[in-house]
Amino acid sequence: MIKRLWRKGIMKVTMGLGGMLFLSGSAFAQEGVSQEMFTVNNTWMLVATFLVFVMHLGFATLESGLTRAKNTVNILFKNVAILSIGLLTYAVVGFNLMYPSEWAAGLWLPKLAFGIGLPADYISGQYADGGYTYWTDFIFQAMFAATCATIVSGAVAERIKLHSFLLFSTIYVAFVYPFLGSWKWGGGWLDNMGFYDFAGSTLVHSVGGWAALACVLILGPRYGKYNGSAKAIPGHSMPLATIGVFLLWLGWFGFNGGSVLSADPELVSFVFVTTTLAAAAGVIGAMFTSELLLKKPDLSMVLNGSLAGLVGITAGADTVSVLSSIIIGLIAGALVVVSVIFIDSKLKIDDPVGALSVHLVCGIWGTLAVGIFSTNPEHSFMTQLIGVLAYGSVSFIAAYGIFSVIKSFMGVRVTEREEIRGLDIDEHGMEAYAGFQIFTTE
Amino acid sequence: MIKRLWRKGIMKVTMGLGGMLFLSGSAFAQEGVSQEMFTVNNTWMLVATFLVFVMHLGFATLESGLTRAKNTVNILFKNVAILSIGLLTYAVVGFNLMYPSEWAAGLWLPKLAFGIGLPADYISGQYADGGYTYWTDFIFQAMFAATCATIVSGAVAERIKLHSFLLFSTIYVAFVYPFLGSWKWGGGWLDNMGFYDFAGSTLVHSVGGWAALACVLILGPRYGKYNGSAKAIPGHSMPLATIGVFLLWLGWFGFNGGSVLSADPELVSFVFVTTTLAAAAGVIGAMFTSELLLKKPDLSMVLNGSLAGLVGITAGADTVSVLSSIIIGLIAGALVVVSVIFIDSKLKIDDPVGALSVHLVCGIWGTLAVGIFSTNPEHSFMTQLIGVLAYGSVSFIAAYGIFSVIKSFMGVRVTEREEIRGLDIDEHGMEAYAGFQIFTTE
Amino acid sequence: MIKRLWRKGIMKVTMGLGGMLFLSGSAFAQEGVSQEMFTVNNTWMLVATFLVFVMHLGFATLESGLTRAKNTVNILFKNVAILSIGLLTYAVVGFNLMYPSEWAAGLWLPKLAFGIGLPADYISGQYADGGYTYWTDFIFQAMFAATCATIVSGAVAERIKLHSFLLFSTIYVAFVYPFLGSWKWGGGWLDNMGFYDFAGSTLVHSVGGWAALACVLILGPRYGKYNGSAKAIPGHSMPLATIGVFLLWLGWFGFNGGSVLSADPELVSFVFVTTTLAAAAGVIGAMFTSELLLKKPDLSMVLNGSLAGLVGITAGADTVSVLSSIIIGLIAGALVVVSVIFIDSKLKIDDPVGALSVHLVCGIWGTLAVGIFSTNPEHSFMTQLIGVLAYGSVSFIAAYGIFSVIKSFMGVRVTEREEIRGLDIDEHGMEAYAGFQIFTTE
Repeated sequence: MIKRLWRKGIMKVTMGLGGMLFLSGSAFAQEGVSQEMFTVNNTWMLVATFLVFVMHLGFATLESGLTRAKNTVNILFKNVAILSIGLLTYAVVGFNLMYPSEWAAGLWLPKLAFGIGLPADYISGQYADGGYTYWTDFIFQAMFAATCATIVSGAVAERIKLHSFLLFSTIYVAFVYPFLGSWKWGGGWLDNMGFYDFAGSTLVHSVGGWAALACVLILGPRYGKYNGSAKAIPGHSMPLATIGVFLLWLGWFGFNGGSVLSADPELVSFVFVTTTLAAAAGVIGAMFTSELLLKKPDLSMVLNGSLAGLVGITAGADTVSVLSSIIIGLIAGALVVVSVIFIDSKLKIDDPVGALSVHLVCGIWGTLAVGIFSTNPEHSFMTQLIGVLAYGSVSFIAAYGIFSVIKSFMGVRVTEREEIRGLDIDEHGMEAYAGFQIFTTE
Repeated sequence: MIKRLWRKGIMKVTMGLGGMLFLSGSAFAQEGVSQEMFTVNNTWMLVATFLVFVMHLGFATLESGLTRAKNTVNILFKNVAILSIGLLTYAVVGFNLMYPSEWAAGLWLPKLAFGIGLPADYISGQYADGGYTYWTDFIFQAMFAATCATIVSGAVAERIKLHSFLLFSTIYVAFVYPFLGSWKWGGGWLDNMGFYDFAGSTLVHSVGGWAALACVLILGPRYGKYNGSAKAIPGHSMPLATIGVFLLWLGWFGFNGGSVLSADPELVSFVFVTTTLAAAAGVIGAMFTSELLLKKPDLSMVLNGSLAGLVGITAGADTVSVLSSIIIGLIAGALVVVSVIFIDSKLKIDDPVGALSVHLVCGIWGTLAVGIFSTNPEHSFMTQLIGVLAYGSVSFIAAYGIFSVIKSFMGVRVTEREEIRGLDIDEHGMEAYAGFQIFTTE
Repeated sequence: MIKRLWRKGIMKVTMGLGGMLFLSGSAFAQEGVSQEMFTVNNTWMLVATFLVFVMHLGFATLESGLTRAKNTVNILFKNVAILSIGLLTYAVVGFNLMYPSEWAAGLWLPKLAFGIGLPADYISGQYADGGYTYWTDFIFQAMFAATCATIVSGAVAERIKLHSFLLFSTIYVAFVYPFLGSWKWGGGWLDNMGFYDFAGSTLVHSVGGWAALACVLILGPRYGKYNGSAKAIPGHSMPLATIGVFLLWLGWFGFNGGSVLSADPELVSFVFVTTTLAAAAGVIGAMFTSELLLKKPDLSMVLNGSLAGLVGITAGADTVSVLSSIIIGLIAGALVVVSVIFIDSKLKIDDPVGALSVHLVCGIWGTLAVGIFSTNPEHSFMTQLIGVLAYGSVSFIAAYGIFSVIKSFMGVRVTEREEIRGLDIDEHGMEAYAGFQIFTTE
């Protein structure tokens, strides 16, 4: 079994220097690894960081591509804002909430006040047993945190009030996400139980997906979506959507590859292989399933298929065999097509970009798949199921509660007139494509 | 002369563990290099891998930008599908076909059956003399393989049947590309002769280009293209095309930089310089040539000019001087303009995106340029020419044969009505730009 | 205090080999660092190089997104051409001009003739005290140089003659930028005075911004822009603009992270944190300021806000605390909104993309901010101010002079008819969006 860094029990080297920060490069004492190895590990983690950053552009382009031109400015605005809010709140509270040195129920609360002063007081020390600096740890995790909030953005698109969304996301990413994350990655009770989620099929994708579900249930469908049968509302730019999927796939090399938490050659390269093949298998799974059920090669299904494969492999990318990664991806790809159709035409829940099917459904699938395919005998299906249920219930209830409170005092939905004219004109006072002749009457 | 890793004679460390895969991190015995150096090399190769991945987005955007809006979904679909198919087939058959441990004519055949079981049985071992893991080797090469098939996609755009294209590409990338690749990179007969192709001017670009030529000859030109003189059919989005070229250039840092097969500081940085300057010189060459011949600064020519420079330098990026790299790029940039005009107006071969000029013509130029400019006295123009002819004849004949057989039993071309209405509506049942007013009548 | 590589006093290892270049891998003698550390440092610098390359795509998409569809081809052409010209001129003259081994006023002149022969004669040696190869040094700096010229491109958009722009940029990037750069990064008089500019708030962004100001003053505003009050001319694609900003942010990880000039774990990760949080704070600063002043959440302001934060942190990213980086970003984000409004409605200077506010105003702010927030007691506000004034006066005068001379013999502005019809049709003979119905009459 491989000895590797994990996210618990990490010791923070703190050196009080008043409010002033000055970098110390001489204290390069490192237990276990050489200075060279430390530098390689750290460099890889920073590469992984900028790859996860790319995912935010991926979400922005995917979500705007799959919705209508009249709401494009709104979606782009949300994605830029939520990334920035996510990064800053994570600096102020999230980081300490999620990775308390000694986790225990309730013990994370006092960290809050401490966390606020953090960025100015902490020194760029190294963890005693770590492979990267304190700053690398923070910035990599901050990029992760921001993705969780972005998942909600797609599902609630084209009808949510901007400020209500920003308020909800701020609370969710600042408090709920890190609190839930601490159960596993902070060394909490689910970690102690043996629950496994390598890079966040549940901790990031499902936690985002459950929040998305709560919000769309409260919001209701877009105007004109379910008059009688479900009406398809096609997205306005398939090139944008495709760019989004490619960039998300690219970012996943950092999302999963960086979750190794070092540049370990075997593990990182192995994770690259399982991640890539699961995504490719997701495409193939969605392609065949959509040809079967829809009788045509549907591009948006195939795009969601690759994301489905990626979400599906995220929980077990380092612990299932290559063959299993292909099977997990194929099933995820098929599942996402069935799920999109079922949620839309049977449940009549309006999810413009398929975020529920990709992140929630395939996040659950990926987490359970660890219990089925893992090569590590310590992983069990029952523990994975308990994790899924625990995360699902708490994140759904939390999101439902927060969003309900926001609804009660400031509302969550734009007026019908604004929705019909488009959020760009009415909320932002500008068009996404000035000069272009576009039909936005419906 | 530099001692460096090469793609032949690599020993695979296999450890049978039944069907179960478990990673061993302790067996870090490495001949020649330290664990730290091994980790740096491997990390760089993984970075190169995700850069080559970016090229697939580059192709998708370039090809869709240079064609009409009514066929955009089709092109995007092809690019997503062929990447996925390429990766999976390379896992199942291609990898073992291309890099047999002891290459000999005919000996690659038995690898086929063996290859199928590969992903599940192999362990993430290290090559005895290598600079990266088995998994890194596979995933880097798999990304390469998929580019070859994508080159065909642009040339046959706007008129090929989706399923015929996918079938052709699958066969070509699974069998023809790795078989031809083994001649050089697998340590085959051309490698023994002294033929040199650093990163694939011939092995990737020309092999893709010859297949593109065979396919377009069988397909014929687009409807209305050659009624009398050649009619220009402008692409629908120059921003998309420009994005594509920049992303391809970006990816080339991995394509060429990764072909060093280690993080060797001098060699990788030198390859960055020759690659970049050849691309820049390609732009300048195309700019002057198009001003001279077309009397205007033509953006699509300049874009193809940078790709021409990149394809041109690919064969000799590590073995020609910096000054030579600029000359090779300038000539490639001029050549691509002349070639695009000649192929279109004289040969009347319809290549919507200029793929033949970029990948085939400049691939040949780059391969021969090694014979002219190489600083290695072992490289000769005659050997390079033999390589070009050998690859050209076999890849063209193979592609022509495969595509002809496909044509005979399922057809290769959409109906005239489908072509006029656009492949998006008729093959995929959706529009790329829903809501936009677009003229697609011609 | 950290001992680190700096851009002065670097010794170039030259080995004459006639015109032939051959790479020597055996001379791995390195003072101070192991071969492994050298390789990591070099690999990180190459990663930073391709990230800075991405910024050029960021500029191309941002600038075209914020202008009208009828001038898109022109903008894309300029960005591709100026990148290529910048890289090649930097190889021929710029690199030696900027980093003379022993800097002294006047001594850089003889380097010119020498520089021309450089690429062919130099060997890929290592600096005696350096962390990367000669080639890495060149290619990283060359990517930097090219960004400076691109900054001008956005401000002069939609009315400048293509050839006049290309001529101006060539002269500016080949001579003015490296000459000015040598004052600080070449170890010149401002470096000796203690002036500090970590990654180029002044040396790149302001130097580009001053040139932009000089050019727009000579050019005058776009047709119809100031008939009475300032008329808003909205950009044609907010998705393109947003893609541009994300890509610029991505590239800044290399722009700032690479300016550490090694893979130093603490310093690079710290720079990642300050850079990211300043960008996020810039978004928040611009969001609140634009809601306050414009009564709406303005996407283009928020996009410029993130760039403002990035430009603002660039001068002191390694030397201010994390808390300071957030404050610098917040102020930059507010500043850019006020500046855009002031320059447009009060000064009536027409800057289509807000380049003056982002690069010039926030470049000055960032440089002065070092004097306020730096944790290094050697940095002083007065010295920073002297640097700002020295760079401002010389770069403005140089740009004004060069552009005036160009105006006198070939003109700098397209005709009114060309401007109204769009530069794409009249200068390039092609449309950016063939087939789309676009209103370009105004």
